Amino acid sequence: MSLLVVGSVAFDTLETPYGVAERIVGGSGAYISLTASQFIKPVHLVSVVGRDFPQSFLDELKSRGVGLDGLEIRKDEDSFFWHGRYHKDLNTRDTLETRLNVLATFNPVVPEVAKTADYLILGNLTPDVQRGVIEQLTRKPKLIVLDTMNFWMDVALESLHRTLLMVDVLTINDEEARQLSGVYSLRKAARKILQMGPTYLIIKKGEHGALLFNKEEVFFAPALPLEEVFDPTGAGDTFAGGVIGYIAKTGDTSFENLKRAIIYGSAMASFCVERFGTERLLNLTERDIQMRLDEFQSLTKLDMVRI
Amino acid sequence: MSLLVVGSVAFDTLETPYGVAERIVGGSGAYISLTASQFIKPVHLVSVVGRDFPQSFLDELKSRGVGLDGLEIRKDEDSFFWHGRYHKDLNTRDTLETRLNVLATFNPVVPEVAKTADYLILGNLTPDVQRGVIEQLTRKPKLIVLDTMNFWMDVALESLHRTLLMVDVLTINDEEARQLSGVYSLRKAARKILQMGPTYLIIKKGEHGALLFNKEEVFFAPALPLEEVFDPTGAGDTFAGGVIGYIAKTGDTSFENLKRAIIYGSAMASFCVERFGTERLLNLTERDIQMRLDEFQSLTKLDMVRI
Repeated sequence: MSLLVVGSVAFDTLETPYGVAERIVGGSGAYISLTASQFIKPVHLVSVVGRDFPQSFLDELKSRGVGLDGLEIRKDEDSFFWHGRYHKDLNTRDTLETRLNVLATFNPVVPEVAKTADYLILGNLTPDVQRGVIEQLTRKPKLIVLDTMNFWMDVALESLHRTLLMVDVLTINDEEARQLSGVYSLRKAARKILQMGPTYLIIKKGEHGALLFNKEEVFFAPALPLEEVFDPTGAGDTFAGGVIGYIAKTGDTSFENLKRAIIYGSAMASFCVERFGTERLLNLTERDIQMRLDEFQSLTKLDMVRI
Repeated sequence: MSLLVVGSVAFDTLETPYGVAERIVGGSGAYISLTASQFIKPVHLVSVVGRDFPQSFLDELKSRGVGLDGLEIRKDEDSFFWHGRYHKDLNTRDTLETRLNVLATFNPVVPEVAKTADYLILGNLTPDVQRGVIEQLTRKPKLIVLDTMNFWMDVALESLHRTLLMVDVLTINDEEARQLSGVYSLRKAARKILQMGPTYLIIKKGEHGALLFNKEEVFFAPALPLEEVFDPTGAGDTFAGGVIGYIAKTGDTSFENLKRAIIYGSAMASFCVERFGTERLLNLTERDIQMRLDEFQSLTKLDMVRI
């Protein structure tokens, strides 16, 4: 099984109540490929960076089985840069600076080796670019996962709708589900969104867990109440990376297996937020993951007694 | 097994995006006793109403096994009245009018028959009044559940702390847990609050479910994603009524059984919000409850496959 990941690889400067991290590696493509490579090899990463990007991080990805044939390195430009400050509750944040740099003209080219990938995950990018990736493939993947955000609903809704027709799984947060559907009830929102194309909808609710819908069923995966959330950056992408990684490894795209996949995704995201950026993901053992999965299961485990 | 319920019985005028309900019956004592009586008889209700309160609702309670020996009816005053308007998201609301009326001088007197009750639940009232109820009992209940709110943390924190020393279960929402403990992480907040007296802490997160803590363990009960939330008034009290009703019926105060109890509480609360006020609770069959419990269980049911 092979996985194609398309997303940004970038620098983030992060301010949280716990400290400041300057120009650390981030971006959806970085988080997704790093997480998915815990489960499946090869991962093909399609992205773009500038002259300022550290070779050491690329070497790290390579050592984990992430193929970089589709990574464009522009010698005359800088990498995408985002500077954000989280509020005290860590659920909301202000963007202090965004420099698109290489991302402004990013036009992903899927390398030959990845055009027949078994699985595809599209990190948050313009819907036009996401659709352009799908159109380069020479074989239909077993599953296409798409992440997007409210910004594209505001400025590129029609393009987003065309892209939604081509994907199997959409991952968005609760506010985005409400915006995309125009209804407040998440159950009704899911029904409307599933008529737009995807077979599955995953609604991410951050510290409140995640919901998985298909046309008939609903499943809820809790988030683990953590001692401390240190930095939420990348949690959604890490979640998505865990989801697609588990699916690709097991080769099963049924609703039952997607339930398991979002538990794995939730477990991976719970590590991500424990440290700045990708730090915790880079220092994760098999045993860490298994123990965290146990915690997730015991959180809702119950022998029901009816009266 | 017998249950003593202390709380308000009142009139609410409610404005939601779905309509207006004028002067319908509400109050924590009404919701809790109505819900608990689905599980256990007798329920003894200690409360106060005025000359304007409908005998028909009292007859309804009596027909469900709710003893009214402790219900004071003041012929020269009016019942407690609250008028609120919910915002579009139904999670926030404005108080438009509060008339304390009989509640201003409410001094609960526990009738003889209820002084040896097996279980006690104290709805949201001033901590002084709540403590005064406990001090009237002639036998220690198997379990005392206390509900409170941020208002008492603002104006009567010392009294609240004294009351917390006397109870077994505290039910509050996530913001209140943060306020009471002074820490943001709910896991840390729980640890601090459990040092204040209670053996168990239940943190209610509304549409995001509920957490149950003791000193060693944590359990999460999801909320069912509903087609439509019509009126959230009374959901927290209905949840508490279901929790104490299930515990009283089963006679088991272990952590394992409290897990089951909060699933029952969540199921009962999910009915409450489907109609205005107590309407849905008054028209609920055994079969409705069983089917809802099935929905709750399937929501997180999972056969995990490790990889």
